[in-house]
Amino acid sequence: MVVYNFSAGPAVLPGPVLKKAQEELLDYQGSEMSVMEMSHRSSLFEEIIADAEKLLRELMEIPKNYRVLFLQGGASLQFSALPLNLAQNKKALYVNTGSWSKKAIAAAQKIENVETKVIASSEDKNFTYIPEITQDLIDEDAAYLHITTNETIGGICYQEIPDAGDVPIVADMSSNILSNDYQVSDFGVIYAGAQKNIGPAGLTVVVIREDLLNEASLFAPMLDYRLQADSHSMYNTPPTFSIYMAKLVFEWLQDLGGVPQILQENQKKAGLLYEAIDRSPLFHSPVNKQDRSLTNVPFLTTSSQLDKEFIYAAQKQGLENLKGHRSVGGMRASLYNAFPMVGVRKLVDFMEEFEKAHGGK
Amino acid sequence: MVVYNFSAGPAVLPGPVLKKAQEELLDYQGSEMSVMEMSHRSSLFEEIIADAEKLLRELMEIPKNYRVLFLQGGASLQFSALPLNLAQNKKALYVNTGSWSKKAIAAAQKIENVETKVIASSEDKNFTYIPEITQDLIDEDAAYLHITTNETIGGICYQEIPDAGDVPIVADMSSNILSNDYQVSDFGVIYAGAQKNIGPAGLTVVVIREDLLNEASLFAPMLDYRLQADSHSMYNTPPTFSIYMAKLVFEWLQDLGGVPQILQENQKKAGLLYEAIDRSPLFHSPVNKQDRSLTNVPFLTTSSQLDKEFIYAAQKQGLENLKGHRSVGGMRASLYNAFPMVGVRKLVDFMEEFEKAHGGK
Repeated sequence: MVVYNFSAGPAVLPGPVLKKAQEELLDYQGSEMSVMEMSHRSSLFEEIIADAEKLLRELMEIPKNYRVLFLQGGASLQFSALPLNLAQNKKALYVNTGSWSKKAIAAAQKIENVETKVIASSEDKNFTYIPEITQDLIDEDAAYLHITTNETIGGICYQEIPDAGDVPIVADMSSNILSNDYQVSDFGVIYAGAQKNIGPAGLTVVVIREDLLNEASLFAPMLDYRLQADSHSMYNTPPTFSIYMAKLVFEWLQDLGGVPQILQENQKKAGLLYEAIDRSPLFHSPVNKQDRSLTNVPFLTTSSQLDKEFIYAAQKQGLENLKGHRSVGGMRASLYNAFPMVGVRKLVDFMEEFEKAHGGK
Repeated sequence: MVVYNFSAGPAVLPGPVLKKAQEELLDYQGSEMSVMEMSHRSSLFEEIIADAEKLLRELMEIPKNYRVLFLQGGASLQFSALPLNLAQNKKALYVNTGSWSKKAIAAAQKIENVETKVIASSEDKNFTYIPEITQDLIDEDAAYLHITTNETIGGICYQEIPDAGDVPIVADMSSNILSNDYQVSDFGVIYAGAQKNIGPAGLTVVVIREDLLNEASLFAPMLDYRLQADSHSMYNTPPTFSIYMAKLVFEWLQDLGGVPQILQENQKKAGLLYEAIDRSPLFHSPVNKQDRSLTNVPFLTTSSQLDKEFIYAAQKQGLENLKGHRSVGGMRASLYNAFPMVGVRKLVDFMEEFEKAHGGK
């Protein structure tokens, strides 16, 4: 049975990428070594990490005055690293749009000499919309304004990046990096866990504008952006195999036509699913229409019992990992770059079947 | 040509492990998914991480009152996490035996409210021996005594763990974990980057005695041992594929007969090389005999020019990554668990050939 994996992350990877990794697993380019066995200081690996950076720069059109870091620890470690690097003895502004924003905010609040201020929130409506950010909400002396461009759990996303004037925007882009038409130059820092659109879990990408690199060294070398930038992400042994996988994913994406092309595909995929939800008498989306995520689509039936039945029956059809996060309930279909259109069609067809069987039109 | 990879890390992995990973790469146990694509909350992955822990507990005979954490960031992140978790407003004792000890010490010194004290050092003889640790050197009120059980660069290692009384010993065991006959109960904390004896880079194992888990929560959740222990290493997405690889390596080691068996193998491997060095008129070991590492064997000829020639010629024979670290010079053969005896024989034979060609006996 063909399986379609709607997991929110770690998530489906492109088939050709996995096949290439499999082919090369015991012998990378005639070296008779696996990439996993290669010294991070070897010329073969140095080529891999340089290629990964070059490809990411091309795909995201990263300007020259930004550094690209390949780190570890997920977005969660960056939640602490960011205020430590950028906001000590300063104010850090946050927008609260859901579970992941809240984690970022909580981590910043734990840093003693950082004044954390939540300037907007959609908690009043259970995080079903993106609040408007107007200039008057922004303290001009703040170190940064933090946003979560896409909330993986709530399924909302920024269609446009707010204008924060001279205050740099710092963004957790874990669940829609390389799936959007944002401009890197609109951000001071972008960070993302790899396990959705980039590669396997265990790699974290940070893109940072050079003038935001910390001047004083940080007490923890591994959290020190300048040190990591100066060491070209090799202060210690980086997650070499994950970086190799990311490189393969970037190559795959470039071969497909890059971000503009995949964005069109993603719009079609999500569009098909949202249409099915919107015309259904049984299913509905909890999310404000203009703030809907392209990559994470939560939806519900009329009862949690029916949700359960749907998830169970879908799994029998090879539609895997559709269970929604417990904080939202219902279902969630994650449609990252590597998720194929045919899987969305299969889901939509199955929704219609299920609808009929349960008294829908 | 068969290649023997003497890399100090990331290092050679067992052939059967890589083959199994290759076989399962596109379809783990009939799931039609790669391990890399599986949610860390899926039952399949929960089984993998539980098995990995169970196997490591068996292999190292970890007592029940110790927790096993699968983290990220390498030993380098633990250099900061350790004093933050264990030594705030306390004294932390360190033994300085080389490059890696020095990094651990430097990181602790950067933590404001930790008093770092180096109680012994072998810097006087360029880190070619393990200094004696006597009880009178140990402040009884110290939070811990930190040692580096094996110095990957200098090639020295503790044959016996010092007795620090009630002060817990905290050990960076990155380069000889699972290659020694230490008792876990002699340590308060053991930590190790995976990329030598465990699996691919990007995974860090921490084994911590329960009573040493921090009581107050730490400002950075990802560095908080208690939080990580309470979350069973799933506070955020762990490096799932690296944990899977570690599990395969643990299975392989158990099938071989476990640590006692591999230790014998390692003694034979290192023994063969040290004998060749000791009887050679051309090569010598810079390290004090009774402190020699089983896993990292530095050796030199009589000149740096000849060292270069040796490394170059060895590589032509498939003997890869023999170049020593720049701080020691010469050559270094890393003989971790997965490195085969036949590779050591080949190296020794080649050393004899090279010796003859360069005017040796």
